[in-house]
Amino acid sequence: MDTTADLTALTIGVLGGTGPQGRGLALRWAQAGLRVVIGSRSAERATEAAAEINAAAGSTSVAGGDNTACAAESDVVLVAVPWDGHADLLTGLKAELAGKVVVDCVNPLGFDKQGAFALPVAEGSAAQQAEALLPDSRVTAAFHHVSAVLLADLSIATLDTDVLVLGDDRDATDLVRALADAIPGMRGIFGGRLRNAHQVEALTANLISVNRRYKAHAGLRVTDV
Amino acid sequence: MDTTADLTALTIGVLGGTGPQGRGLALRWAQAGLRVVIGSRSAERATEAAAEINAAAGSTSVAGGDNTACAAESDVVLVAVPWDGHADLLTGLKAELAGKVVVDCVNPLGFDKQGAFALPVAEGSAAQQAEALLPDSRVTAAFHHVSAVLLADLSIATLDTDVLVLGDDRDATDLVRALADAIPGMRGIFGGRLRNAHQVEALTANLISVNRRYKAHAGLRVTDV
Repeated sequence: MDTTADLTALTIGVLGGTGPQGRGLALRWAQAGLRVVIGSRSAERATEAAAEINAAAGSTSVAGGDNTACAAESDVVLVAVPWDGHADLLTGLKAELAGKVVVDCVNPLGFDKQGAFALPVAEGSAAQQAEALLPDSRVTAAFHHVSAVLLADLSIATLDTDVLVLGDDRDATDLVRALADAIPGMRGIFGGRLRNAHQVEALTANLISVNRRYKAHAGLRVTDV
Repeated sequence: MDTTADLTALTIGVLGGTGPQGRGLALRWAQAGLRVVIGSRSAERATEAAAEINAAAGSTSVAGGDNTACAAESDVVLVAVPWDGHADLLTGLKAELAGKVVVDCVNPLGFDKQGAFALPVAEGSAAQQAEALLPDSRVTAAFHHVSAVLLADLSIATLDTDVLVLGDDRDATDLVRALADAIPGMRGIFGGRLRNAHQVEALTANLISVNRRYKAHAGLRVTDV
């Protein structure tokens, strides 16, 4: 898979694709003409979500299956599951994800009466946990800060946000940047090595504070790039 | 000190004001007509820096002194010292900083051949270390991501960047937001409680990666706010 790969030749899997973040990205990729497989614990719910996404996007390129089928059928796989199921899911998909580009967008956060905060992760970050559990995959981290509300709202034609893409494999991060660039208004920016993923994941807690204070769906733009 | 305080009535101290980040912010505040005291271990070097800033900004409102004098004479104090001197400096200024708004912009980073990375901090972050060492001060965190190169370059009239301002004291964070707003192009955005400061500090490592990849002086804008 080289950096000039035509995205339309690829199948993008979305593990946890019935959740708001995965579903929203799948919708936008379907609109962009990309082929997507929604994964869920329940193949039936994945198939339902795929049908709903196709109806909303006016596409026919979205299919659904259980998470194992999704991982097996895809070339690039977004991990968009809740943090508390992250390790178990990836452990069970090690074989299906071998050799593939994995994009982790999971934010390990806790919530209390003072709002959101970053949870400690033994491996350093969700992305580094994925890397540890999937030694045969090419693990990247991206799409942490994209608002699921804005993704789902198709009256918003362009998303005013950049996506920090982290990873140690240049071809893999270039591919993931292209996946961000495929969504109008969104821009993929290389944001460092995977060892610097924790703060990108944790910054979601700050954006939640911004959203509460300003009644916004905040995103980030990188200036001077 | 209420949220409507006229910034021109205040004296802004800059501990470590002979370093690039503190000096750059002092320059921009001087340009905005604010009164600044540069602090340094050496009163002589602080006074020299103050004179240079006044000459560059066309101002007369910048003075210099040792860090103790700087803290004692100021109403709001920016901490812009290297991380490895952070704890010792603040421990010695506990009395002078009592009752004052302290703005920590220190990024605890390490560097190796793979670039920058976040250092572990026992208190969680530099800002939380400041809070622990200065129980009688009103500690905030801000100005982590502002490029010293761009601050120093007065041919750049407006700085295209937002400043995330963190803290648990609303009046204090409002004041610090106003200090950001005083610099043309810059905008202070409330970015959460101090317990979420670590990731804002650590994200500087990612921006260093962005700068290397794109040959930029990257900053951040918060969208939808």
